[in-house]
Amino acid sequence: MYPPSIQKLIDLFSKFPTVGPRTASRFVFYLLKLPKEEVKEFLKSILELRKSVKTCEFCFNPFQPSQISEKLCQICSNPSRDKTLLCLVEKESDLISLEKTKKYKGLYFILGGTISALKKADIEKIRIKELEERIKNYPEIQEIILATNPTTEGEATSLYLERFLKKNLPVGRQITHLGRGLPVGGELEYADEETLSSALEGRK
Amino acid sequence: MYPPSIQKLIDLFSKFPTVGPRTASRFVFYLLKLPKEEVKEFLKSILELRKSVKTCEFCFNPFQPSQISEKLCQICSNPSRDKTLLCLVEKESDLISLEKTKKYKGLYFILGGTISALKKADIEKIRIKELEERIKNYPEIQEIILATNPTTEGEATSLYLERFLKKNLPVGRQITHLGRGLPVGGELEYADEETLSSALEGRK
Amino acid sequence: MYPPSIQKLIDLFSKFPTVGPRTASRFVFYLLKLPKEEVKEFLKSILELRKSVKTCEFCFNPFQPSQISEKLCQICSNPSRDKTLLCLVEKESDLISLEKTKKYKGLYFILGGTISALKKADIEKIRIKELEERIKNYPEIQEIILATNPTTEGEATSLYLERFLKKNLPVGRQITHLGRGLPVGGELEYADEETLSSALEGRK
Amino acid sequence: MYPPSIQKLIDLFSKFPTVGPRTASRFVFYLLKLPKEEVKEFLKSILELRKSVKTCEFCFNPFQPSQISEKLCQICSNPSRDKTLLCLVEKESDLISLEKTKKYKGLYFILGGTISALKKADIEKIRIKELEERIKNYPEIQEIILATNPTTEGEATSLYLERFLKKNLPVGRQITHLGRGLPVGGELEYADEETLSSALEGRK
Repeated sequence: MYPPSIQKLIDLFSKFPTVGPRTASRFVFYLLKLPKEEVKEFLKSILELRKSVKTCEFCFNPFQPSQISEKLCQICSNPSRDKTLLCLVEKESDLISLEKTKKYKGLYFILGGTISALKKADIEKIRIKELEERIKNYPEIQEIILATNPTTEGEATSLYLERFLKKNLPVGRQITHLGRGLPVGGELEYADEETLSSALEGRK
Repeated sequence: MYPPSIQKLIDLFSKFPTVGPRTASRFVFYLLKLPKEEVKEFLKSILELRKSVKTCEFCFNPFQPSQISEKLCQICSNPSRDKTLLCLVEKESDLISLEKTKKYKGLYFILGGTISALKKADIEKIRIKELEERIKNYPEIQEIILATNPTTEGEATSLYLERFLKKNLPVGRQITHLGRGLPVGGELEYADEETLSSALEGRK
Repeated sequence: MYPPSIQKLIDLFSKFPTVGPRTASRFVFYLLKLPKEEVKEFLKSILELRKSVKTCEFCFNPFQPSQISEKLCQICSNPSRDKTLLCLVEKESDLISLEKTKKYKGLYFILGGTISALKKADIEKIRIKELEERIKNYPEIQEIILATNPTTEGEATSLYLERFLKKNLPVGRQITHLGRGLPVGGELEYADEETLSSALEGRK
Repeated sequence: MYPPSIQKLIDLFSKFPTVGPRTASRFVFYLLKLPKEEVKEFLKSILELRKSVKTCEFCFNPFQPSQISEKLCQICSNPSRDKTLLCLVEKESDLISLEKTKKYKGLYFILGGTISALKKADIEKIRIKELEERIKNYPEIQEIILATNPTTEGEATSLYLERFLKKNLPVGRQITHLGRGLPVGGELEYADEETLSSALEGRK
């Protein structure tokens, strides 16, 4: 139905997360109508992104190398962050969400995914070897916070990590989990029993 | 449009919580088609409800008087419940939700609503005098759990109650709140900052 | 969890259309708190509904017998309605929806349901015998409008009725269907192909 | 929070239709992880789109010039399309939706928008001069189909166009509108009165 070069770009946009063919076609019509200068700016920004953004060698967070550090992101290279705390998150946007709270002053480690089964192939999808290496080389870590999502996959990953850490962490280190309970705006009447139980147990 | 006796009942059903005129008319057509015996059973059940259900004199939970107690509900008259714990909830269904977790063994007190402003008229909407009286007459209470919903009204009510209890509770009594955090199935990426802050602070 | 007479009424309300156990329990708490007089009025209204509302002997619409007619509803007993038009609808609320347009001046016939398969048991669920009888006894009917819903079941019923009417209607009578097309507020971009085809074919 | 080159691209993606900052950031992380070759292909496709796609000189549909025509799209240059029919649509995707039905064999004209008020500035947002020119130069047009959306803006545009065409069209030409009615899957009970009235009037 569409000319080939429109269809081609619809197909590529359809691979973007959350995008279906209808939205993809709206993106293409948007690009078709965009002033020449803005298309240039868009293309340049993608090239710039790919050229300038690197992955932090400690936490795997994407960052732009600066005078402060060529290898570590802004968080990992910040001397005022608390090096005794390590927070394990599934993905980049989870790190951003936690940073926005301004309540956490420790370091992060991006797992790069979740595991749904304890098969070898599945476990290799997350950065378990890199995590093992961090534990060995950074004995100053006193607490590891398992901040995976409270979804089925996140829980399975958390369980696996807890077992792994108990074996590999030096004596005296703590493993903690994010508190469970009712979110802001939530209602007791619509909460599941597990959430309510956690809210009761975690009362203070 | 509808015959008067249909319209009359549509109007009455429209006052039920969550029911609009369209749903109300479906209820009326349902009642019109119901076998005679089932209509009788329905009417009898409403009469029975009004006749047999009383309000617990301690917690205001609706209950059916029994041989065990004429004045107290099953929870309040249960000798194995922990009388040192009192959980304040907004309404009946919140009590039911907490009971379903089977994690709470103390007593309840149903406030009967929330307050949105600190005006006298507003405060009188909840059972504050009865609460004051419970505190005086039941010195065995050691901890009061503020289990209002984490909504705007619930929070305002909780704040008001906290100030009220600090003034009125004997020295050494504890005031606690349900734990805040991510609910089961929630995701860090979509959580608000306050919820995430609570989850971080409440880690364990 | 609930006292028996509360649970009993929750169970009965849960059988109402669109009502689940949670809404049913809200209905019961609503009835528990309702002033005595209003509960009386509610019960009286249900009794009145069952006593005063009859089913129209022609169209099966519920109505309240009046001086004008003991057996026919307001529409069927209205001498100014066009007796040459008969509109077949699935249920009472569809009749009401069409009446609200004030564009239709003919008579109705409520089928009492839809058929999903051409099995005998299925066909007996709608008033096919009564429809046959109407056609025989009312030769003044010139046009029959098939106003079933454009859903899968409605379409199947419409197809069955069309075949049935072609066999049973006297020569020269018309069978029509409600026009298809985009509804008010609809958009071409989100319309299915069948709807758009109908809109194109039905242009005027 | 994000490095500048990530933030820059989030800002640009946030201008895409239907995209907010959260989705935009997911797009950027997607692009960061995409294999180098696929990023290249994506950029090349955008350049190719801008270079190869032109706007049809008759209907304003985007198309790729071919041996058949340098100036007209596949539809306008197709000798078997019916030149006596002209269908006015708001935007490119509406044309695609109508083409998918395979029921329309005439030509199109993309208005490029809708008008919400009859101000000069508003009217200039749609291709009214180009439409006037088409009418003058193509006397073979016998019917103009107003296929704007049945939304408030679409209706206002349709009304304006109808008045404009009545003044400017040669005698004997027809102005039609897409049929209104219930869409596939719709239900009488939930349809608005205008839609039902149209469905009744358009019965056949």
